[in-house]
Amino acid sequence: MTTIKNRRTIRKYKSEEVAADLLNRLLESAARAATMGNIQLYSVVVTRDKDMKEKLSPLHFGQPMVKGAPVVLTFCADFNRFTKWCEQRKATPGYDNFLSFINAASDTLLFVQNFTTLAEEAGLGTCYLGTTVYNSQGIIEALNLPKLTFPIATITVGWPDECPEQTDRLPLSGIVHEETYKDYSEDDIDKIYEYKESLQENKHFVEINNKETLAQVFTDLRYTKKDNEAMSSGLIEALKHQGFL
Amino acid sequence: MTTIKNRRTIRKYKSEEVAADLLNRLLESAARAATMGNIQLYSVVVTRDKDMKEKLSPLHFGQPMVKGAPVVLTFCADFNRFTKWCEQRKATPGYDNFLSFINAASDTLLFVQNFTTLAEEAGLGTCYLGTTVYNSQGIIEALNLPKLTFPIATITVGWPDECPEQTDRLPLSGIVHEETYKDYSEDDIDKIYEYKESLQENKHFVEINNKETLAQVFTDLRYTKKDNEAMSSGLIEALKHQGFL
Repeated sequence: MTTIKNRRTIRKYKSEEVAADLLNRLLESAARAATMGNIQLYSVVVTRDKDMKEKLSPLHFGQPMVKGAPVVLTFCADFNRFTKWCEQRKATPGYDNFLSFINAASDTLLFVQNFTTLAEEAGLGTCYLGTTVYNSQGIIEALNLPKLTFPIATITVGWPDECPEQTDRLPLSGIVHEETYKDYSEDDIDKIYEYKESLQENKHFVEINNKETLAQVFTDLRYTKKDNEAMSSGLIEALKHQGFL
Repeated sequence: MTTIKNRRTIRKYKSEEVAADLLNRLLESAARAATMGNIQLYSVVVTRDKDMKEKLSPLHFGQPMVKGAPVVLTFCADFNRFTKWCEQRKATPGYDNFLSFINAASDTLLFVQNFTTLAEEAGLGTCYLGTTVYNSQGIIEALNLPKLTFPIATITVGWPDECPEQTDRLPLSGIVHEETYKDYSEDDIDKIYEYKESLQENKHFVEINNKETLAQVFTDLRYTKKDNEAMSSGLIEALKHQGFL
């Protein structure tokens, strides 16, 4: 399947719209993904409106794809719909807990990835915004997400206006374990990261940021302990607010 | 993409092996999925050994696919590898927190779904075992998973020996929201679940279980409040044990 093999993240889109019927067809097929008990624990909020994109943009740290893409999709874990159904059918739901959040988040991400593959197969470009879980509470408010729903992933979608190089990946041997997890020796780590560290682009990052190693670019600038801890607290608070903890 | 559109879960497999080089090719392509900062926060443990399947089987409540499939894959969120790299490169990692778990779990599930699509495109059948997060601590021990890793999803893989009917899905209109989340009215809920409730197979479940509604089959038998709450505690304990909380 060349679509998956050749995939790259697309951050620049043509101004051309993505037709609603195409989008719906893709979402409908994406829903064939495995789902817990065939319950489909997700919803998707479609953003096309300029004002709504303006609202979402700062919540995604101003990443230009939010305002630049014709469509922004926020995929949400959703136990609200199922819970309402239970209540309307004399059944006692019990999904206001952490396991149910993880189940719904899993369903959502399988759906997201299926959608992404289908969109790319149709010639569209997509970008996955991990920032969705960094500012969950803001997104919950912007999109009016009720209790027992939670924003998990945002995908910007449009017709590609760029074709960037494919990014590197770790050697498969660094990811696959036979029968049990074999923890990494120092030598393993050196080998696994050797290629990544050798790339000109990564050497450049180290240099312009005045760092000694590439790992420091990640820990000191991109994904710092301080930010992660602050955002962990925010995420846990938002989960409580939405009734999952 | 007919593979995704026609997908069904396969629980019965021929005894024929899944060649290691095919499996590795599929995993390698699957790793093209979007990943946070291109870090690839996952590992996969491949189980082919009979004794290991015997060990895993009860942790998945004895579902016959574990022993019946030639290959069982346990996909794990993994911040261990990256953290070790940071430590070896004079960088201070900060990934022993909840946000980092969610980031790694997300990476893992995108990878899982990509793998599933590719495996099915190659003619293989797969089954997603949601039970992985129900007995996490047992799986952690069985597979020797170190701190900062966590089992997220298990997929059984093999050459199909059945072709079941496709299962139903909710109408797309019940899942998609325009611009903001429109919460469901009683009437919406009735319409969304009408088709599911009308299926003979589901009516049969209600009858043989002496229930009044289909929703009660879910809440009283399949996914009970009591089980969810007990397993939520177990999951949170396991997350603490693995260093993510």
